[in-house]
Amino acid sequence: MLDEAGIVLTDAERAGIEVADFGLGRLDELGLQLVVYVNSDRVCAKELVLFPGQSCPEHRHPPVDGSPGKEETFRCRTGSVLLWVDGHGEIPLRPGEQFTIPPDTLHWFQAGEEGSVVSEFSSTSRDDLDVFTDPRIVRAPAVD
Amino acid sequence: MLDEAGIVLTDAERAGIEVADFGLGRLDELGLQLVVYVNSDRVCAKELVLFPGQSCPEHRHPPVDGSPGKEETFRCRTGSVLLWVDGHGEIPLRPGEQFTIPPDTLHWFQAGEEGSVVSEFSSTSRDDLDVFTDPRIVRAPAVD
Repeated sequence: MLDEAGIVLTDAERAGIEVADFGLGRLDELGLQLVVYVNSDRVCAKELVLFPGQSCPEHRHPPVDGSPGKEETFRCRTGSVLLWVDGHGEIPLRPGEQFTIPPDTLHWFQAGEEGSVVSEFSSTSRDDLDVFTDPRIVRAPAVD
Repeated sequence: MLDEAGIVLTDAERAGIEVADFGLGRLDELGLQLVVYVNSDRVCAKELVLFPGQSCPEHRHPPVDGSPGKEETFRCRTGSVLLWVDGHGEIPLRPGEQFTIPPDTLHWFQAGEEGSVVSEFSSTSRDDLDVFTDPRIVRAPAVD
């Protein structure tokens, strides 16, 4: 899907694609795949890959260390994605469309039937601090 | 060039592509074209388009308002670009390759013979504060 989007990865990036199933064991429905380009103490950029119909469950990025929490812009590159943001409702995104999610705001998103590649531009990512609504979710992957 | 890179813009973005000639009137050699996706008080993301051989002249992003200055990651998407960074020397970038430029550090870059599309992920952009080595340069474009 990244190839089809015209996105070139280095071999190291390709080998290091993160697969997040949130500990639920239902990756085809609930999960996403990520390439992290940069995650400094100021800036983060990623590509998110969503299979057809795959969802990232509802969560928020809470305040941390005096910062108001992660601010995220999602920009759809291919396919389509339905983004839901607390206080804004459903926001359908097609290629070239984007939305900026304020810090500490509940949101979830689901790819349409073609799947989707979504670029994420944000402040620093601290995935370990994400607060998911479903208490069964574990964000940090356990690798066998 | 953005089309060829597989990058989709909205009509408003396409109409708003910034052409920076730095007031030098030699755009084909010295300048660049920019699409700004987001520039909040925390995060900025842009696509930079460089014609074949076109250069962005040497400059730095100084500290501002208690922040150490803009931190930039350049990621080559298509073609090739030669990046020079003070203290690091020449850094050739091909598609999939990237480099993070520390704040307040002199740098310039030039596209190879195919031109280049480069994604920039950074802290907030304040172009009006950029310090160019060539004193003739005016960053803010004057539009007739």
